[in-house]
Amino acid sequence: TILHNISKLLAPHDLAGLTVLVTAGPTRESLDPVRYISNRSSGKMGYALARAAALRGARVILVSGPTALEPPPDVEFIPVETADQMFNEVTRAFGGADVIIKAAAVADYRPVTVSHQKIKKSGQEMIIELVPNPDILAELGRRKTSQQLLIGFAAETNNLEQYAREKLSRKNLDLLVANDITMPGAGFDYDTNIVRIFGPHDEVEDLPLMDKNTVAHKILDRVIELRKSRQGAV
Amino acid sequence: TILHNISKLLAPHDLAGLTVLVTAGPTRESLDPVRYISNRSSGKMGYALARAAALRGARVILVSGPTALEPPPDVEFIPVETADQMFNEVTRAFGGADVIIKAAAVADYRPVTVSHQKIKKSGQEMIIELVPNPDILAELGRRKTSQQLLIGFAAETNNLEQYAREKLSRKNLDLLVANDITMPGAGFDYDTNIVRIFGPHDEVEDLPLMDKNTVAHKILDRVIELRKSRQGAV
Repeated sequence: TILHNISKLLAPHDLAGLTVLVTAGPTRESLDPVRYISNRSSGKMGYALARAAALRGARVILVSGPTALEPPPDVEFIPVETADQMFNEVTRAFGGADVIIKAAAVADYRPVTVSHQKIKKSGQEMIIELVPNPDILAELGRRKTSQQLLIGFAAETNNLEQYAREKLSRKNLDLLVANDITMPGAGFDYDTNIVRIFGPHDEVEDLPLMDKNTVAHKILDRVIELRKSRQGAV
Repeated sequence: TILHNISKLLAPHDLAGLTVLVTAGPTRESLDPVRYISNRSSGKMGYALARAAALRGARVILVSGPTALEPPPDVEFIPVETADQMFNEVTRAFGGADVIIKAAAVADYRPVTVSHQKIKKSGQEMIIELVPNPDILAELGRRKTSQQLLIGFAAETNNLEQYAREKLSRKNLDLLVANDITMPGAGFDYDTNIVRIFGPHDEVEDLPLMDKNTVAHKILDRVIELRKSRQGAV
């Protein structure tokens, strides 16, 4: 925390006065008290964004699914487990946020039923029925005011550019940060990432391999730019 | 590691000359490159057993699914992800082991198919078909020689005693360590546990709430006793 305090003195305080809401990590959707469905999100990208935003003077709220990480200093930390819990916490904090960065990998589906007892093994095949979870990002895109910036993420294995542009427009985002998780050094569990930042006017910025803290600051630089251009346009 | 070296000097070396194979943690069964099915095993009980056995002079092989833990010192560490990988590593090491402690929570099922690309969300219901994984513990019970001791675990939410006795006998175990994961302080992710140790002649030892390192030493005490009684009987 001495390092953190020095970094904080040295960082530009260009987010001072703003509230930044960050989501991070996976969600877990229980099948029974023991088993669950989840995904490979480590939370590192979201935690790096929360840390960087706090260093730059923002009030930061971090809503996080289960990860192996320590919450960053100077951050209001709200742990959740399921997509439903994340939906509730995020929509509660959304109204007071100037910038919303949805780095969490929220489960798209959850089991129709959750068994209260551990399901015993039968030796037979088993079927799990899943239903779609609420689409938090799309809901925030609908609720967003002209004063708020909404940044989404897309982790893809194929057709990255097509999926990214569709998601940006369909979910009414201001920026979309996309990465191809099949590339070495990009995506889940790495300390580095290789991202493409898609903007609202079909522009795309390709960043080279860099550590997630640096990626986080690059994303926040784009947020500052976007806020300035919006204010200039008013 | 200074603490570890002091502990090692002070611990009884009653497992010297023996090879102890420990499994720990959950397994992960992929649905696609992003999503998987897993369970709430933290690996803490298995890692405590590996650490305790190494302190007591054993050669220790630890085969572990993905956890947030550091491998203990003086342990041969073999990381795995799926039940199939764990089956392969455990059966490879089994022949050279005197004591086998299966503390891992191996997934009973895996998806029939694993998609090579990230499955796109459809907004519709989804069905996952699962097939049973190989039953590692049962297989080891079949292969076990009279010189080897096989210890299993059971984490239950109900009917603990019935399930424990059935599992001990059906899988040809020498000891079964059972815990009711609905009890506060017992089971997944806690640093403590409340276990019942079932022996081969219907005897059961109930241990009170204690930290997992102490539970580990109690289990190893039972292993030493069992070995002595077997040798006495020869």
